[in-house]
Parts: sequence; C-alpha cells; structure tokens
Amino acid sequence: MKHYRKHDYDLAQIRRLLEPGPVVLVSSAHGGRTNIMTMGWHMMIGFTPALVGCYIDPANHSYDMVVASGECVINIPTADLLEQVIGIGNCSGSDTDKFARFGLTARPGVEVAAPLVAECYASFECRLADATPNPNAPLFVWQVVRAHVAAVPKLPETLHYRGDGQFMISGREIDTRSRYPGQTR
Amino acid sequence: MKHYRKHDYDLAQIRRLLEPGPVVLVSSAHGGRTNIMTMGWHMMIGFTPALVGCYIDPANHSYDMVVASGECVINIPTADLLEQVIGIGNCSGSDTDKFARFGLTARPGVEVAAPLVAECYASFECRLADATPNPNAPLFVWQVVRAHVAAVPKLPETLHYRGDGQFMISGREIDTRSRYPGQTR
Repeated sequence: MKHYRKHDYDLAQIRRLLEPGPVVLVSSAHGGRTNIMTMGWHMMIGFTPALVGCYIDPANHSYDMVVASGECVINIPTADLLEQVIGIGNCSGSDTDKFARFGLTARPGVEVAAPLVAECYASFECRLADATPNPNAPLFVWQVVRAHVAAVPKLPETLHYRGDGQFMISGREIDTRSRYPGQTR
Repeated sequence: MKHYRKHDYDLAQIRRLLEPGPVVLVSSAHGGRTNIMTMGWHMMIGFTPALVGCYIDPANHSYDMVVASGECVINIPTADLLEQVIGIGNCSGSDTDKFARFGLTARPGVEVAAPLVAECYASFECRLADATPNPNAPLFVWQVVRAHVAAVPKLPETLHYRGDGQFMISGREIDTRSRYPGQTR
C-alpha cells in the first residue's frame, strides 16, 4: 500500500479536511501496545487552538487506551483503504494487533507516543484538551498539536459512512470565493 | 425553489444522513421570531435515543434562540441550495428575517415550535437533551424527537464545507454489505 509523504500543516487549517465529515482512523498507544479504531462521530470545535470533539464508546478497546494515555492520532484514510477501514471497525484491539493484521505501518509522532498511520493521507497528533467538557460521558475534546498532511493529491477521495456497510465517497469541489468575496470563514 | 415532500423517518436511522458530514441549516424560534443558521460542526452521539452534538458559537444570534427555547430543527439542504447556505451563514438573525430574505418557507413542526425549512431534503426536530455535557461551553447535545425525510431522491447531493468558500459535494455511493456480511453497524 502507498505510504503518503506528509508535511507539516497549519493547525488552523485542519478543518479543511475534517469538517467535510470523513471516516477517520484513530491510533493510540499505551502500555507497550498500539491500537487503531474506525470513527465517524467527530466534529470541529475550534480553530485556534485546533479542537476536535468526538464520541468513543467505552465498549471500544481504544476508549481505555486514549483515556489512559490522554493521546491519540486522528488519521484520514483515502478511499483506497476501504477494506482496512471496514476490517478495523469489525475487530477488537483487545485480541488483535491491527497494524499487523491490516498491513499498516506505524510511524512515530513528534508530540505524542501514539503512532501515525503511514498509509493515511493526513495524521493529526492530539492531546486531550485541558478542559474536558464532561469527564463522565464518552465525549472527548482533543487539541491537535501537530498536523501532517500529504501535498499530493491536493484533495483526495475520502470515505463518509452511512452505516450498515454503506459509504459515500467525496465528490467534486465547488469554490465560491470569487462569487462571495466578502464571506466569513 | 422545490419543496420536498417529507415523510416520517426512523429516528434510529438519521445517522445515514448526518454521519457523512453535510452542512446543515439550524432553524429556531423564540419570542415570536424565527432564525436560521448554517452549521458544519456537528456529529452523531447516539442511536437510541437519537443524539446529535454540535458547537454553536455564542456570537451567533441562533445561540441565544436555541438556549432560550431549548429547541431547534436541523435541516439538510441539497446542493442546489448553495447560495442560500452561503448567504445564511454571512448575515445575522439579529437584523435579518432569513426566511424572507432567502425565499425559504417555514413549515410547522410536530414536536417543537422551531420551524422546518420546506426547501430542505430532511428536517430533524430537536430538543436539548436532559443531560447537557457542559452547560459552560457552547457544546449542545440534541435529542432528535421527530424526523422528516423526503423519499425522492433516495440519496441527494449534499454540501460539505471546507471553509473559505470551498465545498465538497457528496459523490458516489459504495455498498459493501454483500462483501462484509458479518460487519457491525
């Protein structure tokens, strides 16, 4: 599988990739082990600092790992990783080394111990934000502390989950800046 | 503009439309006035009850209206409403009747006083969930109490925002159910 050559990316711009709503792969590390989960329930919460909210059900093995480590990496897979995205979502890190099983490559991060997935187009290193909105519910607020994004392709095809094994693939782009020059961000 | 004929829709299935990450129009009503805002920062939080999380900045006029009323309607516009989506996001309900200005039609809801947008493909009537994760931060958890979705087209083109006036339009669909019969939802 292709390894994306990723470059440092402006944290204030990560919404360009996350706000359209792609399925992401959340990688984590704790106690000498790594894990990956497939996640569709996330949203932007802030630009600066770059904050991302997500829901991780406590039934997931990754829940314990991200709570214990306070870190994760949010990776954006391209559409060619469809089979890995599905497979990762349908087994548990409690008894599976998902990097090995799905032929994915863990790369060290700069700021966090959780690994980057080399085969993903973008990887955002995250730390649990100081102020967790609700420590009693499985809602997480992550501060993205380092972003790595491939320069090519400029806007890859991403996977957007509908449930029940059905995905929407990102389509064409529309740029309205010239028509609405005064608009907000 | 086209009015979608919408039908009652299974609340446990709304993720099919929201999880792919479309821009939504949030309509509200309070004190005899209505408002609409464009919103891209939302995520699914639960199936049953159907919970949706979102971030609404207090600078928005809609923030005061949904806090005061405890209700809103999350409407999903199709790609042909691009100009309305942009325009609604670039003016304030404090001095603008957005339904009138953008030629949109308010329809009464069943469960909430906030109006449905007739020109939108889907409308989800929402009440603030009993347990707000964090009353001190502008994160909202909505329980969808009634869903209205058009039967045709089955999966319309939706708008997915990248910021700075750039949108991704939803593309083709992939159904993997036959290939992965044992997968989870």
